[in-house]
Amino acid sequence: MSATVRQWKLVARPKGLISPTDLQLSDSPIHALQDGQALARVKYLSIDPTMRIWMADIPQYMPPVAIGEVMRAFGLAEIIESRHPDYKKGDKIVGLTGLQDHLIINYAEKHNFQKVPSIPFVSDTNFLSVLGVNGVTAYFGLLEIAKPKAGETLVVSAAAGATGSIVGQIAKIEGCRVVGIAGTDEKCRWIVDELGFDAAVNYKHPNWKDQLAAATPKGIDINFENVGGAVMQAVLDRMNLHGRVVLCGLISGYTREDAALASFSQILIKRLRVEGFIILDYSSRFMEAAKQLGLWKVMGKLKDKQTIVQGLEKAPEAINMLFKGENIGKLLVEL
Amino acid sequence: MSATVRQWKLVARPKGLISPTDLQLSDSPIHALQDGQALARVKYLSIDPTMRIWMADIPQYMPPVAIGEVMRAFGLAEIIESRHPDYKKGDKIVGLTGLQDHLIINYAEKHNFQKVPSIPFVSDTNFLSVLGVNGVTAYFGLLEIAKPKAGETLVVSAAAGATGSIVGQIAKIEGCRVVGIAGTDEKCRWIVDELGFDAAVNYKHPNWKDQLAAATPKGIDINFENVGGAVMQAVLDRMNLHGRVVLCGLISGYTREDAALASFSQILIKRLRVEGFIILDYSSRFMEAAKQLGLWKVMGKLKDKQTIVQGLEKAPEAINMLFKGENIGKLLVEL
Repeated sequence: MSATVRQWKLVARPKGLISPTDLQLSDSPIHALQDGQALARVKYLSIDPTMRIWMADIPQYMPPVAIGEVMRAFGLAEIIESRHPDYKKGDKIVGLTGLQDHLIINYAEKHNFQKVPSIPFVSDTNFLSVLGVNGVTAYFGLLEIAKPKAGETLVVSAAAGATGSIVGQIAKIEGCRVVGIAGTDEKCRWIVDELGFDAAVNYKHPNWKDQLAAATPKGIDINFENVGGAVMQAVLDRMNLHGRVVLCGLISGYTREDAALASFSQILIKRLRVEGFIILDYSSRFMEAAKQLGLWKVMGKLKDKQTIVQGLEKAPEAINMLFKGENIGKLLVEL
Repeated sequence: MSATVRQWKLVARPKGLISPTDLQLSDSPIHALQDGQALARVKYLSIDPTMRIWMADIPQYMPPVAIGEVMRAFGLAEIIESRHPDYKKGDKIVGLTGLQDHLIINYAEKHNFQKVPSIPFVSDTNFLSVLGVNGVTAYFGLLEIAKPKAGETLVVSAAAGATGSIVGQIAKIEGCRVVGIAGTDEKCRWIVDELGFDAAVNYKHPNWKDQLAAATPKGIDINFENVGGAVMQAVLDRMNLHGRVVLCGLISGYTREDAALASFSQILIKRLRVEGFIILDYSSRFMEAAKQLGLWKVMGKLKDKQTIVQGLEKAPEAINMLFKGENIGKLLVEL
């Protein structure tokens, strides 16, 4: 076993993007395992926009990470030594591993790790994306909150991201016209050519609002919103009466205080229903989603892509990549 | 019969508050009635925030008033001469009379006027407020969209206005803790002392957010929103998880372009449901609401107050009073 654990600890709360002095990498010794403990080696870390929220001392849906604590992160780890009744060497698990290369799991503590099963056509890392948090977020947000009907037009922002790319594909399965908004032409090509979206709009093009109008000739019935701010406003401006907005993320505002602002007037005039949505509320139903997502995945109806950054030391830069739009699909750190 | 009709016509679209050159008062001759026509004399005009929206050339829930047209307004009128099969002299009606002192009703045209019944303890003008648009707006917005439960805390903005004052009283009937936000101490006293609200907060006091916090010790479950902007943001900041926001009005934004802005982040984090709401969607169910509202009114459970401005020539100034917070209860123009 490794004699040390390398950990990213939160030492200062970022302003805007994460700066090199906000997270500190340090080594700590790992003591010999006691009864009821298992040691796991982290193989992949999931890099998610919500990490930036966890770093801020603002009201949120989980406690913020405390200064001095190991940074919170989802990850995939392999048990390398075990005196824990539930785990044996070689087991793979997903859950909140923390932004570190090893972790100790204590039987006495309430951890919430899922064992990773071995399924044909499904890779381990799929359990951090299409069969993990992103998949269930897309599944419940779309099917339970928006309740799409065949023939309706759905627009999803951050459409080439880990969640947005699955939202669009599920909406296609449900018979919707699907338009994605993304920030590079490469992302736009990927979601149309590979994922089967009906159209994509690059919001960095000067005439993108005209393109959005052309891509949504019957208006927009459902907005699966991951971005907020000006992108959301342009979508709201094209919403149909009694449309539904799944407010899943506001990434444009996580590093800039005012960017989550948009006008409420379209919501009023068009009698839209906007619902905030945090996937934790559906945790008791994850298996229901995972079964369906796994079936679609095996049938080839759900495709995914990963952007993988090598090395734990790159984790803070990886988080910033999300806010600079530098990843396609699921962003992972491989250790 | 009067030989002329005095009419306020929209001649320019206002920027901000209505200026004296936006609406023009003019006289037109009234010709002798033909078969199928009735002549009505307007007795009261309802002055509503939505009039400012109708004057603007923006997407909205009804067509904007065209330049040169008589300004749209709800009113109460009395039939003074009739060759119309549905109306006889002396009948009183409510509906979209227009901002004028007389109107011709044509059998051939689709008008939507309700006859005003004679009910003990109910005055004619109640059919422009507690038993009219404001009453049914409060009724359906609260009971159908927010679905209040006894013990929940409701906050209503523009609480001393025609709609807000009824919302709070119905919420009290339903067993809620009710807190109103208004802009003068006199309004605050009225809604607490006369209408029975549990607390009121004057948002013009420097420490009003602390007062709002003190008045909502268990947070806020329902926001019946009439104002938008900074007032709405302060309420959102105190909403409980899975709260409901009935987005009924955004009056702070009707005369200032940016004032309807607020951050969506609380909606996301707290999984709020925000629904835009326009009373027209419930027009087929008005009688259901009116019966219950009438019962409550007769039982003394619904109180109301009117601010009455005298004279058709004062109508434009009356509209501006709404945006300057100068009325308590229902604002009417008496002709």
